[in-house]
Amino acid sequence: MRATVMRNKRLVVTDLPQPEPGPGEVMVKTLACGICGSDLHALRHAEQFVEASRRAGSVFTMDLTRDVVMGHEFCAEIVEYGPETTRVLRTGTRVCSRPSLIRADGPRTVGYSNDTPGGYAEYMRLTESLLLPVPNGLVTEHAALTEPMAVGLHAVAKARLESDDAPLVIGCGPVGLAVIAALRLHGARPIVAADFSARRRELATALGADLVVDPTQSTPWQSWREAAVWRDTSRAPVLPPWIAGPPRRPAVVFECVGVPGVLDQIMAAAPRGTRIIVVGVCMEADTIYPMLGISKELNLQFVLGYTPDEFAATLDHIAEGRIPVAPLITGKVGVEGVARAFEALASPERHAKILVEPWRA
Amino acid sequence: MRATVMRNKRLVVTDLPQPEPGPGEVMVKTLACGICGSDLHALRHAEQFVEASRRAGSVFTMDLTRDVVMGHEFCAEIVEYGPETTRVLRTGTRVCSRPSLIRADGPRTVGYSNDTPGGYAEYMRLTESLLLPVPNGLVTEHAALTEPMAVGLHAVAKARLESDDAPLVIGCGPVGLAVIAALRLHGARPIVAADFSARRRELATALGADLVVDPTQSTPWQSWREAAVWRDTSRAPVLPPWIAGPPRRPAVVFECVGVPGVLDQIMAAAPRGTRIIVVGVCMEADTIYPMLGISKELNLQFVLGYTPDEFAATLDHIAEGRIPVAPLITGKVGVEGVARAFEALASPERHAKILVEPWRA
Repeated sequence: MRATVMRNKRLVVTDLPQPEPGPGEVMVKTLACGICGSDLHALRHAEQFVEASRRAGSVFTMDLTRDVVMGHEFCAEIVEYGPETTRVLRTGTRVCSRPSLIRADGPRTVGYSNDTPGGYAEYMRLTESLLLPVPNGLVTEHAALTEPMAVGLHAVAKARLESDDAPLVIGCGPVGLAVIAALRLHGARPIVAADFSARRRELATALGADLVVDPTQSTPWQSWREAAVWRDTSRAPVLPPWIAGPPRRPAVVFECVGVPGVLDQIMAAAPRGTRIIVVGVCMEADTIYPMLGISKELNLQFVLGYTPDEFAATLDHIAEGRIPVAPLITGKVGVEGVARAFEALASPERHAKILVEPWRA
Repeated sequence: MRATVMRNKRLVVTDLPQPEPGPGEVMVKTLACGICGSDLHALRHAEQFVEASRRAGSVFTMDLTRDVVMGHEFCAEIVEYGPETTRVLRTGTRVCSRPSLIRADGPRTVGYSNDTPGGYAEYMRLTESLLLPVPNGLVTEHAALTEPMAVGLHAVAKARLESDDAPLVIGCGPVGLAVIAALRLHGARPIVAADFSARRRELATALGADLVVDPTQSTPWQSWREAAVWRDTSRAPVLPPWIAGPPRRPAVVFECVGVPGVLDQIMAAAPRGTRIIVVGVCMEADTIYPMLGISKELNLQFVLGYTPDEFAATLDHIAEGRIPVAPLITGKVGVEGVARAFEALASPERHAKILVEPWRA
């Protein structure tokens, strides 16, 4: 089968044997697979990615001397059942799945593994019990966005928002956009979101942001302070007389950039008691000043992935039109186009999500 | 009055004018004042302390070209009332107070300010409404430990412990010991605590630790894993078959060291979902690897100080013998001895808390 593989830190198109489904597994044809920012990171910082995963004891343990087929945001079609399967879904059914294989000796990741090809290949192996049929009528391209949008749903769930919390989203790449969609779904308003890219600010508005900020024009916190004034002043805390300005609702910031230095900037600017949800995946070392966190009693909640229920709920939300994913899709490529798509995604002005369709000529 | 001042990053004994109590204030005689690890930090890293406070917008804004009388853990005696005071407590009453002055234009810190001398001087100015009379019979030395022990009470309150949480205390200096005492009071058991110093491990046991760990002999996490096995297995989660060993209760770690690198060590070793309460005051830059936090969905709660209620409750706990502070006091000095006491405190083998008694000859 045709596949784009990561080999010596480059993306190369090659032919690979079709994966054989093991017990409880199915072989699927990849219909569409999104390119994730983590894939860009993993290619650029491959050693750091593997080393950080090793230190964290995580499942992302690739051998970089061997090929890896990335791609973990997919919609696929059932082609063939392996042994010990229930075969409830008919061959040809379109499915989504969390990018994991469940094996007796532990889970395998799909997309960051040498032995389990991801969605940048024509065919994948998946675990039957994880398959979710795509609801009738939902287009394949939108179903493929279940995985990245589930990340937003999970981040918002982990934030444990209370009714008075006022959110601020820093960074409007696909992760920030997923968070904005999930905040809108949750009803936490107004949603303030900041990004340097005009295109991404447009997308933030399309996904549900109430107020978008260009950090070259205003600081995100200035806009947040205006938006976070209590409407119902009877609920607002009484501030001591020496504190200037009206009281603000509690701040919950979603860090959706994932590059060194952003956490420090947020910790320096955040008001006392702010909760910071770290959704952006920074794979490098980062410098913080604990005194900033201490003086203001900040809370940092790091998050990753989603629960099985959140993943399934996200597919439903997309199918029912409660998460508007259409504006996110800014390009489609075959396996030959993946390397160029990675380059294009480095510039935020044109693209949000590029889908790989490995069956394309 | 005699005082030890911080001048050009050194401690110098000098004579200062007695402070005049302003409206709503009292002049008190310092009976005993503990030396805090933060004072050692502030002397050693004065510029960083001021710069970090400035960036955080905190009240600790000292001008290092002018003298500062440190000391914020005190018991004192009312000498003279200023104007606009209610004078409910008789002159001569022993009192504790949070180290703050409440002024119309905002609070002032006592102990990290150029204009509000702290407890390393014979006399201080305090706000009348913050004074708490020392319950009859409680010795002055023990009352002086209210402030540092309140830090432990607050840290445990901010940890929002649930009944199944299994605590681990990293570092058994005065902050770690205060946390251990508060954990014991809260009933969170077993309490596992780690320190390189044998003397501090003894103190940890005296304050209520169930299991103390010498990190040169075993890792704190190894001991924690043994201690955190579920007693009531009916409450334990069912782990997937590929995870070795019994399930452990949720981990809540109290970081009570406050030097660069410790947070990274804890983040690397902590199990998935661990909550880390950052109580140690690291005034320098620190390096973390966000991927560690992300992979394991760690939570970092930075904490500082205590609420007025927690401070008052701590004084009661000490007076009622519910927090055993006697073992903590390992030395007493007059103002002439403060500089030597700072040096002695740098070695953890002899000392925990040294009290300054500025009235001493």
